[in-house]
Amino acid sequence: MAMARTTALLLVAAALLAASSSAWEVNIQMPASAAVDDAVAPLIHALRPLLGSGKQAGVACDSWRLGVEAYNVRDWKTVPANCEGYVGHYMLGNHFRRDCKVVIDQAIAYVDGLKLAGNGKDVWVFDIDETTLSNLPYYATHGFGARPYNATSFDAYVMEGSAPVLPETKRLYYKLLKVGIKPVFITGRTEDKRAVTVGNLRSQGFSGWMSLTLKQHGFKGSAISYKSAERKKLEDAGYVIVGNIGDQWSDILGAPEGARTFSRPDPMYYIA
Amino acid sequence: MAMARTTALLLVAAALLAASSSAWEVNIQMPASAAVDDAVAPLIHALRPLLGSGKQAGVACDSWRLGVEAYNVRDWKTVPANCEGYVGHYMLGNHFRRDCKVVIDQAIAYVDGLKLAGNGKDVWVFDIDETTLSNLPYYATHGFGARPYNATSFDAYVMEGSAPVLPETKRLYYKLLKVGIKPVFITGRTEDKRAVTVGNLRSQGFSGWMSLTLKQHGFKGSAISYKSAERKKLEDAGYVIVGNIGDQWSDILGAPEGARTFSRPDPMYYIA
Repeated sequence: MAMARTTALLLVAAALLAASSSAWEVNIQMPASAAVDDAVAPLIHALRPLLGSGKQAGVACDSWRLGVEAYNVRDWKTVPANCEGYVGHYMLGNHFRRDCKVVIDQAIAYVDGLKLAGNGKDVWVFDIDETTLSNLPYYATHGFGARPYNATSFDAYVMEGSAPVLPETKRLYYKLLKVGIKPVFITGRTEDKRAVTVGNLRSQGFSGWMSLTLKQHGFKGSAISYKSAERKKLEDAGYVIVGNIGDQWSDILGAPEGARTFSRPDPMYYIA
Repeated sequence: MAMARTTALLLVAAALLAASSSAWEVNIQMPASAAVDDAVAPLIHALRPLLGSGKQAGVACDSWRLGVEAYNVRDWKTVPANCEGYVGHYMLGNHFRRDCKVVIDQAIAYVDGLKLAGNGKDVWVFDIDETTLSNLPYYATHGFGARPYNATSFDAYVMEGSAPVLPETKRLYYKLLKVGIKPVFITGRTEDKRAVTVGNLRSQGFSGWMSLTLKQHGFKGSAISYKSAERKKLEDAGYVIVGNIGDQWSDILGAPEGARTFSRPDPMYYIA
């Protein structure tokens, strides 16, 4: 009898153990964006730890993400279908924030170690989307990058000017202003989005940048060619690019890269 | 009474849930290396899943590792002290292998997409340590990179010629031979280690490489300058470097990099 009861207890315990992740599940809704067209907000199980790789039928999602960040996985069009939930959890949970913090901690340690000329010629290049401002409210309702890019709906979202700040980047930004390094924005957004971009940056607490360069409408080259050419113009004008931060490798590759580059995590899309 | 019993059941279940990781723990010993000097093999809890970041007192270890692989964390001397266990679990478990598989899958997909001249001039550059051969048996008994580098004990380990193959790299290596791309080794090992290196490669099933370049004793430059200069010599001799794989960014940075680069994970050490 005692034996049977112990067995029963253990069976219940084992069942609870096996079901432990679902016991923690809480369904939350993503903040709905006003730009939502045909999309519905996904259910994200915020309190469910994702053990292992998030591997289901396809690629091991955490290894795929590492491959993206280390520039081994290139030229991808969408997040692998089986990784939509993994990327959603990653972006909405603490993991993404932790990863961002390490990048910015490194950047700030680098700044602290600089011997600056103090002649007003030191600049730092920032990308905007997924570097300074986050489009996560859009991507959270569009498959976290697992659905094909839709320029129409994404542009509509950008034109709202509601993208939230990426706080770690803002920490770096104000550190730079404090030590006399001038922030420079070079973005793949096109010139027609200047006003909304300025408004969005200001509403998220940014001010004091030296310049904001947007892509000319009709430019046909790659992001690397566009951005490296703009950096070259800065150097030709006598500026020293002491740092350069983006979320895409195309933000930071291509001479002149800047004295030191930093790459923020972004598993949602790829720009060549 | 029924209520009390249910409560008791739940308490037991909760306690088991809380203790679930230790319930899975199994202590295993790393294979002891003959080169072990002052080191003892660490206890690694192979069946204990590491939830979250592995963060204890210091840095978030998984974010630190991502920072290393994405080239945000540079010039580090040792693995952060609080991450020794994390790196050990990573290297010994399936996580490292999964990450390697994604890199090599990408490399093989790239090879499959190549249009080769077929003139015998296509080559692929391989680094050796942590790219082709694994020094994990050494690092597993020396803190997984959390202890300062000891050239004496590491060299003694290398001179055993017992480093095991990294199987995914071997898969790529034989794929290349099959399609007519010649493997070229360029290693930071010094010329005095040629015989043991050749023996180690052969014993691990490698043959058919075009050349094996070791560093000249007394060379004072950086790994980047050494390796890029050797790649330049290949190009000057009429070879086309269609690919280049290493575990360090210093293996693959510096013109000419090769048409496409691949970076295998290595959270154990950093070479500038």
